[in-house]
Amino acid sequence: MDGKYHLMQTNSSVFLGDKFYNREHLNFILFDVLKAERVTAYEYFSDHDKETVQLYLDATDQFAKEYLFPHVVEMDRVQPELVDGRIRVHRAHKDIMRISGENGWISILASKEVNGMQMPSVFSTAASFILGAANYSGCVFPGLTMGAAHLIETFADKKYHAIYLPKMFAGEWQGTMALTEPNAGSSLSDIVSSAEKQAYGTYKIVGQKIFISCGDSDAVENVVHLLLARIKGAPTGTKGISMFIVPRERINENGALEYNDVTSIGVYHKMGYKGAPIAHLSFGENNDCKAWLVGEENKGLTYMFQMMNEARISVGLHATSIASAAYYASLKYANERLQGRPITEKNPELPQVPIITHADVKRMLLFQKTFIDGALCLELQCSYFADMERVTEGDEKEKYNLLLELLTPVAKSYPAEMSNFSTSTALQIFGGYGFTKDFIAEQYYRETRIHAIHEGTTAIHGLDLLGRKVMMKNGKAVMYLTQEVMQAIAKAKQHENSKEQAENLEKQLAKLQELSMHLMQVAQQKGVEAYLSDATLYLELFGILVLAWQWIKMANTCNENESMDKHFKESKFLCFNYFFEYELPKVQGMFTRLKSTNHITVGIDSSLID
Amino acid sequence: MDGKYHLMQTNSSVFLGDKFYNREHLNFILFDVLKAERVTAYEYFSDHDKETVQLYLDATDQFAKEYLFPHVVEMDRVQPELVDGRIRVHRAHKDIMRISGENGWISILASKEVNGMQMPSVFSTAASFILGAANYSGCVFPGLTMGAAHLIETFADKKYHAIYLPKMFAGEWQGTMALTEPNAGSSLSDIVSSAEKQAYGTYKIVGQKIFISCGDSDAVENVVHLLLARIKGAPTGTKGISMFIVPRERINENGALEYNDVTSIGVYHKMGYKGAPIAHLSFGENNDCKAWLVGEENKGLTYMFQMMNEARISVGLHATSIASAAYYASLKYANERLQGRPITEKNPELPQVPIITHADVKRMLLFQKTFIDGALCLELQCSYFADMERVTEGDEKEKYNLLLELLTPVAKSYPAEMSNFSTSTALQIFGGYGFTKDFIAEQYYRETRIHAIHEGTTAIHGLDLLGRKVMMKNGKAVMYLTQEVMQAIAKAKQHENSKEQAENLEKQLAKLQELSMHLMQVAQQKGVEAYLSDATLYLELFGILVLAWQWIKMANTCNENESMDKHFKESKFLCFNYFFEYELPKVQGMFTRLKSTNHITVGIDSSLID
Repeated sequence: MDGKYHLMQTNSSVFLGDKFYNREHLNFILFDVLKAERVTAYEYFSDHDKETVQLYLDATDQFAKEYLFPHVVEMDRVQPELVDGRIRVHRAHKDIMRISGENGWISILASKEVNGMQMPSVFSTAASFILGAANYSGCVFPGLTMGAAHLIETFADKKYHAIYLPKMFAGEWQGTMALTEPNAGSSLSDIVSSAEKQAYGTYKIVGQKIFISCGDSDAVENVVHLLLARIKGAPTGTKGISMFIVPRERINENGALEYNDVTSIGVYHKMGYKGAPIAHLSFGENNDCKAWLVGEENKGLTYMFQMMNEARISVGLHATSIASAAYYASLKYANERLQGRPITEKNPELPQVPIITHADVKRMLLFQKTFIDGALCLELQCSYFADMERVTEGDEKEKYNLLLELLTPVAKSYPAEMSNFSTSTALQIFGGYGFTKDFIAEQYYRETRIHAIHEGTTAIHGLDLLGRKVMMKNGKAVMYLTQEVMQAIAKAKQHENSKEQAENLEKQLAKLQELSMHLMQVAQQKGVEAYLSDATLYLELFGILVLAWQWIKMANTCNENESMDKHFKESKFLCFNYFFEYELPKVQGMFTRLKSTNHITVGIDSSLID
Repeated sequence: MDGKYHLMQTNSSVFLGDKFYNREHLNFILFDVLKAERVTAYEYFSDHDKETVQLYLDATDQFAKEYLFPHVVEMDRVQPELVDGRIRVHRAHKDIMRISGENGWISILASKEVNGMQMPSVFSTAASFILGAANYSGCVFPGLTMGAAHLIETFADKKYHAIYLPKMFAGEWQGTMALTEPNAGSSLSDIVSSAEKQAYGTYKIVGQKIFISCGDSDAVENVVHLLLARIKGAPTGTKGISMFIVPRERINENGALEYNDVTSIGVYHKMGYKGAPIAHLSFGENNDCKAWLVGEENKGLTYMFQMMNEARISVGLHATSIASAAYYASLKYANERLQGRPITEKNPELPQVPIITHADVKRMLLFQKTFIDGALCLELQCSYFADMERVTEGDEKEKYNLLLELLTPVAKSYPAEMSNFSTSTALQIFGGYGFTKDFIAEQYYRETRIHAIHEGTTAIHGLDLLGRKVMMKNGKAVMYLTQEVMQAIAKAKQHENSKEQAENLEKQLAKLQELSMHLMQVAQQKGVEAYLSDATLYLELFGILVLAWQWIKMANTCNENESMDKHFKESKFLCFNYFFEYELPKVQGMFTRLKSTNHITVGIDSSLID
């Protein structure tokens, strides 16, 4: 140990973890807790089974270790730059796209009709977790392309499938979602990019888009933007927004690519997540930007929500991925770094001990692990619901749809916010070294901070949850979720090692119902602004309860599997106990605040905040 | 507004706040809440009065605006580098040291005997707050020199005063505290740097020190290290550590400076706080590093604690400073940035509104402001206690000493941890822009992260608070603090607008007492490791209660001053209410956890954390 770390800076290497995720735990959630292979019993997913899924995850693991993780520091240090009108990115992105294409990973979710693999999304989400943990910046190119292709497949006329999908699936063309504008960030209804209909059915686009992830790069031959714009004469607000396919290079009469008047104005320099190019784009500067309508006019936002909902799960997932990588780096350090002695040991002549010996370091590690495992379980649960929604019909389909709708803002935002604390805790374990560039922790802390912002800020998701989702169909979504949670609670009550915790969660659920009644009264008596004023806090509270449910499910699985490895089981129950001892109590203060009738942020003069 | 922000990146300017602190509020705390000018009634501080203090703060304000704030971004972008064995720093540091020297700011706390100004520390703390808010990296050179000079003045033989103090006070020589070693970070008892006594009473030093702030630079002529080392044959552990003056350049027989064998091995590259050089130093590589003993042998750690205690207040203070600067940047943006419409307004044709209109943005601003004003009040309160300790005698002196000892870990750590959330909240208000380098928020988020680490991690201070301070002299410190808080509560109960909050805090104090009884039982029944296992959480809980006390005091001041500006008073009560509605309830979950008897981090096999 002696002198091992403090000399790091001179050899230009950075302290990384031994691993960035735990495959055993991922398998536990997929196959033991969720029993996700059940979806392959349905016709649509019947090409797959547990074995082929394992092979897919093995291949993903290998790819992550060989192509993504080795570049994680480098992508942070050498960020994308705009050079002669094109954004230059790390050379690995090209390989990543090519290999993702060659292996069929970009088309993995697509239907067989378009030569996809029809993989259940719960497994591609698991794969995406691995990639994001290896190198978040490195995994966004194929991920976004997958999402954009899915939009084209689902909503665009079939004549466009042949033009775009094969190139995108092959990793040769990149896909993006181009929504945000300088004056339309959270407020999408204020989009002003315009589309004018031309002869032959195409449109001409004029406008600017900002914060476009992978919006331009030299890693791919072409970029296909799924862009929102307003057709001239369309209604104002969200009802007048249409979706277009806008390639950077269009195909001319000769079948060759020609410039489609899409200009990269700039690339953002960011605090973290530096490996991915986030572009500021201008469309139609020379009045020659052609676009092709997706689906019907003025329905663009509805279509985009499909991609946004997938992207939101992906954001929560990758917040968890980054936290996972940070956790394993800090765990390695905690096991190696010698500092201090057991607290009852006063003899300074005894050797120092690994810092994992200290209770507070254990607490910091358990905080991270409990969050990461719980959040991963939630993300995979959501993807499982998405798969079930696809393959079921009628009431059952509705149930899965509603569960997914309700959980999406939680699955996006709770991990996004918690990942900030989790990576911060990892950094703290390194002490002074954690603040230096010689150790990876500070990079993860910087990278993950984007997740509470992109794909809708946490506040936006709070409004979505409290303002829409919990009231949807007279609270039917909440009813379905409560049923799910109560089923898990009923099981947990049958075991001594989970009974008390299950009863505790049951009590909190009752308090949540009381809170809902209270908030309804607030809405009636004080109006919607007061009702929604602490929606962010409500989201956090809801998130903690949803995580408690994941831990109850995991405890149930352990209790039901008598053959499970004892050490593995003990390690799970340690986290289970941690969650109920340290995390769940946090809801108490939140309930107190949310049940207060003193809405101090409503109706006050802004000038009092000075 | 249109196009204003998104083009920032092309003109190389960065969005900053209009201001970085609020002088009116600083004055309110100093002169209305604390009535700190009372200390000038004592002989020792009698050269000063409210008017001269105001002039000093005016000059500080001007200096901060002219020399520090203009370089805040640049110091982040062009970090110190080791070039030919010397650390090259931003050119402004030299001016900052020179001007600080010329104006007598480095000697402001020193006694008249050594040509100091004998300023009460409460006012120099206020000045330091201003400087840290303007540019944290920019203010550490004079701050550390002040602390090191204070050690020499207090503990070193007078013959050393004339050699070092005039040069340090003039800003020509830099001072440092050189404690940390590669294998002795949190565990100071493991220091191995050695000192060997020479003829003529000097010592020869051999060893390495890491993380030495301002440990080397080209901004000053010389660096004077207050270094801890072990004299050959000294006892092991903390009882064998001595303090030495070790200049980088020593004065030879001819009165000229000659190299004293202090080598800069490296400069740390850090996540933030980049403007300040943090050095890795080697002493005595050529066996020619001379040192002069401070005070008596083996008493070094006791002496160092004087500087460390001052430095700890300074860390909490500067965490608050950085949060203040981030707050004002986000406040400016919230007032200017147009996005969305009032939540009840559905008409998309109406113009967008400033985001400060939205309840959640108000909440995010109030969270920051309430923390910053409360924490600033705490830091100044501590400095006031330090001044009172200096000028009083007997029981009174003991009281102030104990209050300061008890509050120091809280004043260090609570703001350090909260500043992470506060700057994160500032960043969040900027949305996507907050993650970019075009806006200052991300820099503050990176910079402040050091504060929960340096001068003792939060965990160390938790142990200090629960393991030492609350038990000190049979709990006498806690008794004094409780008296202070109860006095404030009694006053607040007399006013309708603070009665309920005061009663609430009173209840929490009673719960804290119950908790103490519980923890004593834990100590007896389960031992000291269990007792201290959640000391970090105890510290956080204690911090919230201490902040509540600051807000009670501020409310009392408002209620007692009938002539106070109505708008100012309303704005204070808004924060007061915010604190009791949103922050104080957080203790509920902490009490629940801390009163649990399930000590899950104690006595478990580390391998279960995997």
